Amino acid sequence: MNVIVDLCLVPMGVGVSVSKYVAACHEILKEAGLKSQLHAYGTNIEGEWDEVMAAVKQCHEHVHELGAPRITTTIKLGTRNDREQTMADKIESVQQKLV
Amino acid sequence: MNVIVDLCLVPMGVGVSVSKYVAACHEILKEAGLKSQLHAYGTNIEGEWDEVMAAVKQCHEHVHELGAPRITTTIKLGTRNDREQTMADKIESVQQKLV
Amino acid sequence: MNVIVDLCLVPMGVGVSVSKYVAACHEILKEAGLKSQLHAYGTNIEGEWDEVMAAVKQCHEHVHELGAPRITTTIKLGTRNDREQTMADKIESVQQKLV
Amino acid sequence: MNVIVDLCLVPMGVGVSVSKYVAACHEILKEAGLKSQLHAYGTNIEGEWDEVMAAVKQCHEHVHELGAPRITTTIKLGTRNDREQTMADKIESVQQKLV
Repeated sequence: MNVIVDLCLVPMGVGVSVSKYVAACHEILKEAGLKSQLHAYGTNIEGEWDEVMAAVKQCHEHVHELGAPRITTTIKLGTRNDREQTMADKIESVQQKLV
Repeated sequence: MNVIVDLCLVPMGVGVSVSKYVAACHEILKEAGLKSQLHAYGTNIEGEWDEVMAAVKQCHEHVHELGAPRITTTIKLGTRNDREQTMADKIESVQQKLV
Repeated sequence: MNVIVDLCLVPMGVGVSVSKYVAACHEILKEAGLKSQLHAYGTNIEGEWDEVMAAVKQCHEHVHELGAPRITTTIKLGTRNDREQTMADKIESVQQKLV
Repeated sequence: MNVIVDLCLVPMGVGVSVSKYVAACHEILKEAGLKSQLHAYGTNIEGEWDEVMAAVKQCHEHVHELGAPRITTTIKLGTRNDREQTMADKIESVQQKLV
């Protein structure tokens, strides 16, 4: 089962600047060979459910190791079995409808 | 690694009434032996990361089997390694601070 | 337009314990006369769109005043125009389908 | 108070294809003069709180008018009073930390 994810991980107890942790997660996703795209309020990821979710877990573990005692993450998860759809397809599908 | 989750699964392409699908997910969580609590905009779950996430995946698979061609889910995920905390602890912690 | 909201406000830069801020938001919702229900990963609110949103804004402003330099909030917002539905209706609708 | 928002509006009861509704929201944001950026699982918006929230409300109203009887939306909302930060700043801040 393929999934498109929007991941927004927020380390708590480490001050206001969290870009270091987001960058560390980005490296994890890259090493996992997952297609991902950073945006201004999270990171989109596409791939096989188990691989994506293993990477998300690894992000939590690694951010704890980097010193964050607490993490709150918001994830959006999209699956469909009527047809295949990539992150690029989703964006293109909207853009075609814009004037 | 323990996790507290807020799960809000939304089947698409099956009309406006989705309580049947939410109830089916509730059964999956119960059969998985996970502590869960339904609220008006989702279900809170607490347990070991892998067990909770396996149940979430099973919810997606089962809701597709029940006929939903597309699913979009919003999850909040909380982990901490400074101390143990249950769903009940979180609520109590706020209530103690209310007048 | 009526709305049912799930509000999860996360103050950043104030350490790991945030229940004080959640309790302060709870007071704001109560003073606004909004029906609300605390759960383990947020607070459900029901009411007229403008009133609910004014209260959410007030929560952000007040939590900043209490000392949080940064806030990240996750909100779920449900509206419908086919029929009226309360938070209690949503829960009951699922519970009727449980064995 | 400035806010950076991630908006993901999901019309229910209109089938699986929702890009038409997302495109309509995009037009509303553009007409409101708000800076926005479409991504694969939502749209990022930046601006003054009241203007952004008025546009979000208008999106709900317009998507109902277009025929969706029910809408569930997930929003992330970021505010800070320690310094100004744009969507572009947030992305740049992470990218500087990537190898």
